[in-house]
Order: sequence, then C-alpha cells, then structure tokens
Amino acid sequence: MRGLMMDDPLLVSDLIEHAALNHGFQEIVSRTVEGPIHRYTYADALKRIKKLANALNRLGVQQGDRLATFAWNGYRHFELYYAISGSGAVCHTINPRLFADQIVFIVNHAKDRFIFLDVTFVPLLEPLADQLPHVEGYILLADKDHMPETSLPNVMCYEDLVEPESDEFDWPRFDENTASSMCYTSGTTGNPKGVLYSHRSTVLHTFFQCNGEGFAMNSKAVVLPAVPMFHANAWGLPYAVCMVGAKVVFPGAAYDGASIWEMLDTEKVTFAAGVPTIWMMLLEYVRREGKRFDHLTQTGIGGSAVPLAMVEAFEDEYEVEVFHAWGMTETSPVGTTGAFNCKVAEMPLERRRTYQIKQGRSIFGVRMKIVDDQGNSLARDGETFGQLAVKGPWIVGAYHDNDEANATQFTEDGWFLTGDIATLDDYGYMTIVDRAKDVIKSGGEWISSIDLENAAVGHPGVAEAAVIGIAHPKWDERPLLVVVRSEGAEVSGADVLSFLDGKIAKWWMPDAVEFVEELPHTATGKIAKLKLREQFAGYELPGVGSG
Amino acid sequence: MRGLMMDDPLLVSDLIEHAALNHGFQEIVSRTVEGPIHRYTYADALKRIKKLANALNRLGVQQGDRLATFAWNGYRHFELYYAISGSGAVCHTINPRLFADQIVFIVNHAKDRFIFLDVTFVPLLEPLADQLPHVEGYILLADKDHMPETSLPNVMCYEDLVEPESDEFDWPRFDENTASSMCYTSGTTGNPKGVLYSHRSTVLHTFFQCNGEGFAMNSKAVVLPAVPMFHANAWGLPYAVCMVGAKVVFPGAAYDGASIWEMLDTEKVTFAAGVPTIWMMLLEYVRREGKRFDHLTQTGIGGSAVPLAMVEAFEDEYEVEVFHAWGMTETSPVGTTGAFNCKVAEMPLERRRTYQIKQGRSIFGVRMKIVDDQGNSLARDGETFGQLAVKGPWIVGAYHDNDEANATQFTEDGWFLTGDIATLDDYGYMTIVDRAKDVIKSGGEWISSIDLENAAVGHPGVAEAAVIGIAHPKWDERPLLVVVRSEGAEVSGADVLSFLDGKIAKWWMPDAVEFVEELPHTATGKIAKLKLREQFAGYELPGVGSG
Repeated sequence: MRGLMMDDPLLVSDLIEHAALNHGFQEIVSRTVEGPIHRYTYADALKRIKKLANALNRLGVQQGDRLATFAWNGYRHFELYYAISGSGAVCHTINPRLFADQIVFIVNHAKDRFIFLDVTFVPLLEPLADQLPHVEGYILLADKDHMPETSLPNVMCYEDLVEPESDEFDWPRFDENTASSMCYTSGTTGNPKGVLYSHRSTVLHTFFQCNGEGFAMNSKAVVLPAVPMFHANAWGLPYAVCMVGAKVVFPGAAYDGASIWEMLDTEKVTFAAGVPTIWMMLLEYVRREGKRFDHLTQTGIGGSAVPLAMVEAFEDEYEVEVFHAWGMTETSPVGTTGAFNCKVAEMPLERRRTYQIKQGRSIFGVRMKIVDDQGNSLARDGETFGQLAVKGPWIVGAYHDNDEANATQFTEDGWFLTGDIATLDDYGYMTIVDRAKDVIKSGGEWISSIDLENAAVGHPGVAEAAVIGIAHPKWDERPLLVVVRSEGAEVSGADVLSFLDGKIAKWWMPDAVEFVEELPHTATGKIAKLKLREQFAGYELPGVGSG
Repeated sequence: MRGLMMDDPLLVSDLIEHAALNHGFQEIVSRTVEGPIHRYTYADALKRIKKLANALNRLGVQQGDRLATFAWNGYRHFELYYAISGSGAVCHTINPRLFADQIVFIVNHAKDRFIFLDVTFVPLLEPLADQLPHVEGYILLADKDHMPETSLPNVMCYEDLVEPESDEFDWPRFDENTASSMCYTSGTTGNPKGVLYSHRSTVLHTFFQCNGEGFAMNSKAVVLPAVPMFHANAWGLPYAVCMVGAKVVFPGAAYDGASIWEMLDTEKVTFAAGVPTIWMMLLEYVRREGKRFDHLTQTGIGGSAVPLAMVEAFEDEYEVEVFHAWGMTETSPVGTTGAFNCKVAEMPLERRRTYQIKQGRSIFGVRMKIVDDQGNSLARDGETFGQLAVKGPWIVGAYHDNDEANATQFTEDGWFLTGDIATLDDYGYMTIVDRAKDVIKSGGEWISSIDLENAAVGHPGVAEAAVIGIAHPKWDERPLLVVVRSEGAEVSGADVLSFLDGKIAKWWMPDAVEFVEELPHTATGKIAKLKLREQFAGYELPGVGSG
C-alpha cells in the first residue's frame, strides 16, 4: 500500500528559490579574485542564476552534460552551483591543486563540455587545453575589463554571457535521482575516482547537515566556508546556507590569517568551517596581532584530525567553540558531526576534550560499522580496530565509470568501505586510527601506524617518523619504525624504543628502528608510505632469519 | 544522467534503530494509564518493538494492513508506532474524542484489521464493536493483571502477546513511498478524511522538524509531547526524538496542570509541545501553587492561535520561550515554525511579539502561497488575504478513497488548498485570518469573520460574537454580526457598531447586528457557522430591499 503524500522531488533549485523568496534580503558577501568585496542578496543572486541558466541553454547545454569549474569561493561560483544543477546539468568542481596529469584525466574522464574558471587558473589550463578534446569552450569568471590575454581556445567572458539574458527561468522538475554535481577524489595510488551526487542526495545531505544534531544552523547564522567550493561541495555549506537562509561570506582566494580574520570581523561571521591548516594560520595571525573574535562562536574543523592544542587555543584563549566533523568526497561530504551527546556534555572538561578530538559522532542518516577483513562486524567498544564502512542515502553507491574501484570498495550488502581503520563506541563516536593500507596486521590484530608515529615524534631527537609493516613468518607483519633525526640529535634506535615503552601496548613495540636522511612525501605533504614500502622491500627484521 | 549515490530508502525503522544503537542509554518515561511511572531506554524499547513485530507476524498481519490504535501517549503506543510501520503495515491512530459515528466511519473506511486500545477506551468501543465488521480482534494495552472484563470480541492482552516473542527481527526494506501511518481529519462538515503518510514523508518531515530553522532539537533535549499521539502523530515528536536521540517523557492520560508540571519538573523536561488549552491549565496551576519551571526552556504551541497573554506569561513571568508552530493533519503535521529570522530577532520586544503570534514562518520544504478564488497567486505583503495553498514532500497528495475531497482540495498544478484564509509576508511569516468557508466576500475583497468577532467581544456587553456573510445584491456578501449579550448587559446594535468604529477598516463594518440567546457550537467548542448560516438563511440586510 502506497502512502498518498505529494510526489514532490527533492531538487537543488528549490534551495535557492526558498532562500530568495523568504530570505531575499540576506547577503552573500565575496572577496573577489581582483581584490574588492562584492556584496549582493539572495534575491539578486537568484536573478543572476536565472540569467546564467538561460545562458547555458543558449550555449546548447543539455540535461546531464558535465560542466567543469576551476574557481575559488565566491558569488560567481555560487551562481554556477545553482544554475548548472538547477537546469539538470552536472556541476563538476575540479580541484586546481591536483597534478596536471590528474586534471587532464579528470576532465577527459568526465567528458566536460565547458570549463568555467577564475582568471587565476588561466595559466594552469593553457598548457593542458590541447589535451582536453571534449571541452568546447572556456568561460572566464570575469567582466570585460578583467579579461586577460590567453591562448585558451574559444574563450568567453562570464559577465558578457550572463548580462543580456532574461532573469526569468522556470526550473525543470525531474527525477530527484538525476545527477546534480560531481567531484573526483584523488587517492595516493591510481587514477582519481568520480563521485556523482544526485539532487536527492544533495538535499538530504543538507537536511542532515542543518539538523539540531548536526551543524544546527539557522537564519541568524553568518557562515564563512573556508573550505573550498572546488572540493567536496565546500562541505555542503553553499546548500546549507540556502536551506536555513543564513548570510554567507566567501573568502575568495585569500586564505591567509589576515584576510580570513578581516572577513570574520567585518562581516560578523558566527560560524566558519575549514581544515586545521587554515585555522593554524588564523591562530598565528590573531596571536601575533593581538586580535580577538568578537562574533565568531563556533568553528567547524575537519578534513584531517584536529590537534588538541588547536581545540584548547580556540576554546580557552578565544572562547570559540570547536566542532569536529569528519567526511569524505564519497559522503557528500559530511559523515559525522562532533556535537556532544548529553552524556559527554556533562563530563569534566578534560574528558570531554578526549571526545572532541575524535572524528565525530554517528548522527541519523549515516549508518556506520567497523568490519574485519572478512566483513564481519566488530565490537563498538571504542577500542577494537576495524575498517570503517558506511551506508546511507548520500553515500556513494558506485564511482563513475570505474569497474575496478566498484569491485573492491563496496560490500555485497551495499556498504561503502572507506579504506579507513577506525574504532566506534557505543555513543557512536568514531576515531580514525589509520588508513587500511597502512595499518600493520600482526597476529590477527591491527596496529595503528599513525599512533606509533605520533608517539615516536614525542621524542625530542625525532624530527619525523613513519611506521610500515614488514612481512614476518609468525606474525604476518611487524612494525618497522623509520626515523629522521632532529638536526644535531644523536638519538639511537634503543633510545627511541625505550622512550616508547609504557606509552604504547607492549605488542605494538616496533621490531626495529631505521634512520634515514629524509622521508618521501606526496604532493599534499603526507608521508608517501607506498614509496617507503618500496624503499624497504625485502627488509629483514632482526631475529627473523634465525627464528 | 543519474547520480550514483546509494539507493537507500528512507524508512521509519531506521529511526528507532539509530536511537537504540547510538543513544541506547537514553530514557523513555511514561505515566501509565494505571498511574505509576514506567521507565526504560531506547535499547529496551527496540527489543520490545521487535517482539511486537514478531507478534504482528504471528497474528497474520501483512504489509499494507491497517492496524488502529486508541491510546494515550505512552511507551506501548510508541512501540506500536515503530513495530507496525517498521513491519510495513499502517499504524492508524484514531482520535477517541470523535463522535461515535465518526469512529465507526473511520474504522470501516480504513478497513482496520485489529484495534490496539488503552483499557480506558474499552467502554468507548464496546457499544461500537458490532458495527466494525473488518476488525478481527482487540488488543488491550495492559498486562494480565490489568485486563478488565469486557464484551469486546476476540480480546487479547498486549503483554501476553508480546512477551513470548523473540527480540530479534530484521526490518524489511521496501519502497520508501510505502504507507507507514494514517490519520483521519474531521472537519465541521462531511465525513472524516484519511491522510495516508509514507515512510518517505515521515522521515523527511522529521528532518524538517529537527532542522536548525525548525525545532532544532538535539540529544541533550528532554521532550514532553503534550500533544496526543492519537492525532497527527503528536506533531511528529515520537519520530523526532529518535532522530536526535532525545529523552522523551510521555504524559499518559493526565493533561491537567499538576500532572504535567510534575513530569516537567521531575524529568527535567526542556521542551514541551501542546495546544493553548493545555498551557492555559498549566499556567493556572503554576500561578496558583507558586511553582516555577527549573528546566523547561521552550514551549512549542500550536493547534490553534496563541494568545499574546500566553506568550507574555511564559516569557516574562516564567522565562520559558514560546515557539509558535502551525500545521494540519494534512501537513504531517508541521507546516511552519515560529523561530525568529535574523531581522525579527533584532526587533524591539513589542514588535517581535507581533511576529510571535503569527502562525509561523515558511521554512525549507513546505512551499506556501496565497491564492484568490481563480487560483492566482496574491501579494506576499502581510496584508492581502488569500486561501493558503501548500506544497511539499510531506504534504497530502490525495485523501484515502475520497473522490469528492480530492476533486476540490487540490489545484491542477498539485498544490493542496488548506481551506484557510491567510496573509503571507516577505519573510515567509503566515497569519491565518479565517476559514475559507467563513470569510466574507465583499466586492471582490475578503473580510475576516474572526477579526470582526475578536473586535466585537472586546465590548464588555458582548459575551460571544459570530460573524457570517449575508447575500447582498451589490457586494455579493456583507457581514452580519450575531451577538450573545453578557449577563445583565443591555447593549444595543448601535452600541456595538460604534465600539467597532476605528478598530476595523470602514468597509468591514457589519451591515447589521442581531442578538441571540446562544450560539450553536460544535463538539469541540467552536462556533458552528454552518448551523448559524442555516438559522439566518434568507435574512435580509437593512436597506437591501429598497436598494
């Protein structure tokens, strides 16, 4: 028996229509690439978005076409989010920080028909254009006065394209499972993998995000997304601000401490979201300059683990609450939120902080479990390690055109395997302990390489440390600790191991320590474990030959 | 092009599974019909719900079967909500306050197979049982010791039914458009009309309700639904508490001030929701007894308009924030919420209060417009009157098996016509000014009978007033004011009209005043305008004969 409620699809266009109708006065403030602040309202934005939708029609864009963006956080990017998805095409945001060959792969794999780009990215794309056969044109996010000389073929000026169009446009209504946007995730190995969001997943994720257990935003919030709109939908904030009618402040290309602080202060921002690196720069700036936060009440931090010292700095020095969240491109991207549950909220500060630096809590809509290599569910005791698997209506169901990843990253009963090793507790708090490919599997138990590395760098003679698993005849794998000595330090392997004693479980103790001049790194600054493992291929742990 | 996110249906069973898994310790506290307080956790509740689901299987309940409940707010009713819907059957809550012939109509129209009832409702149903041919059995919500003597056929004891079953049950996963629950709405005319909610509409409505712009609840809340679970899903609160993992306190059958206050106080309730009548009783009690609210921070008030004096009492005397919401059985039921937007929040108190007594604000998910008799959209200026039309995924799309209502209450482009005359402003605030059938249509403009009545009862000589439209050759209709004099008062029609002068628009001035001994009322205490119109059928307004 079917229910008899309205068959009304969840569509992205409804978000901006709602904001313009009921919060039409609310401001969208952007720092432009050219420098000056741009300011208009949701009502203004909707008119421009409708002009843009008409312009896309004139360009011959069809439903389902992929249109790429290379753009900072700003009002024109915001217009693209809504005009492209609202028309039924796919807004394909591309991370300009990727390697050139990854960008070429992504644009060709997605078969993007047009590329919209900030003028700052012209030099990035010029040398690649002849490798992008599907791209029919390049639209520069600028007005006529700011159009640069360029070798890009078929270049158009955004403002010239948009301005002459009508600001009336009836959004098509279609199946909510229609693709709305797209983002590729780049691992340390293999080609980037494309995640294809739908209107349904986007609107549901926005409801999830705005939930009282989530970010709990409302129309009184002033939101600064310091997470880029070119990756993972800026955590979904460009949608969330429309759902709740909040003022939004886009920082453009300027993520330095001074620029972010200026926007926070002059625009009276109450909530800002970003990765730890951004906040580190901001904290350095405010300390150096003796600034305060007069309006900011909460920072959302995610993307990588939040150091305890950062929580303490924001909360104890600056009275800004820290809200830790976790997610992935594959989870739309918010997967957990760090709002305390009623039990943790009542704990003494120090204990509460141990929860605050976890990766957040399972809230309604994203089911989580941890599984062993055979896919069995493991205990939710906060201690047992397992691969984190997630399920829900805004979790990736399959990568775009990628049989290999689709064969390995999904369970038969439909869970997405994140590739992260984590613990879960009975409140739903999740802690990531390692990447699945980096965890050391010893005697059927798992050892976190990250935990060992963090413990080792506590020794003043250790500048950097990496732990990898080395094959072992009895235990399958045992940890090898690879150390870069601090400048001038003369620390020995035995020194480091005795330093670790008592700080880690006995059976986690590395079987050996090797010293190197430097560790290999990826483009984003992480230790390249794959290269390190190649470097130590065939390494024999002490005692194994004779064992 | 389809998105590639998980095809994961929105199901009611996921709500209780989430609550039990991540908030398993959280309490569900109920005042029982027998008197004592019952207390258990979400983890306990899920086990019992699964036992009940197994028991339903054993009874031969099939997906799509309608199972009726006549029950107060309590843990067993909560179990029924989840076990019935979770299994794929339809939880059909029935309002025991309806007239006997309406109850018979509803049970037969829905073809309910079983009826679950609190023992207090045995005397209500005994005389009706032989008119309910589809009902195969009556399950009394009691244990063996509390089973009464009854003439009801095929009576079962709830605890005996549930207790022997296994507490393991795999919820079926099915199309989210499957019906989950059902509620009939009773107008002043015609038979009750059935609204058939789906799993999709229920879960989406819950997301809407828990939104930062909505009730913004989280797991730290302690929620007391003083709105009955037998009507319009207790405003959806039994679902919302599971979504956010809040403690919930069910008041059972005791809605008097002393009982409600005791539950608020001993269980540290932070949020309670109810109709103005309930709060009036509570305020009288706390004033008389000199009580305070030590934990309550917010009351949600809806169902009928909130008097300003009630807002002032809660906020100024007791520091409890008032949150006005509006909805209908047809809107799942929350349609608006009264959280201030950023502009209203900054207004001086007196002006803010004028917004607070409006019927709330349009938040994302429920689209609203006001239309004239031809269906044209009218101005959102806060002054223009029009029939309120709503649209959204948790708004009724059609009534169950009711061609007549389905032909008249829906527009061709899929909006639901509420039958309410309202104004909308540019912030999305809505004010109901009249019922469509009661509004007076004069010269193409509409006059609110309610506003005229409210103005008239301001005269000390007027005990009660009703306004109806009388046919007029030139203006179509003109208002007739029908007055019951206060005891001993000798007020004249001219007195009343001169009292109204200056308080209402000139052209709203009633053309005549008639005095009566008493006005006809409906079962729920409202003025029966239909009867009053019959009473004054053929009435001639002064001056019309000669005009």
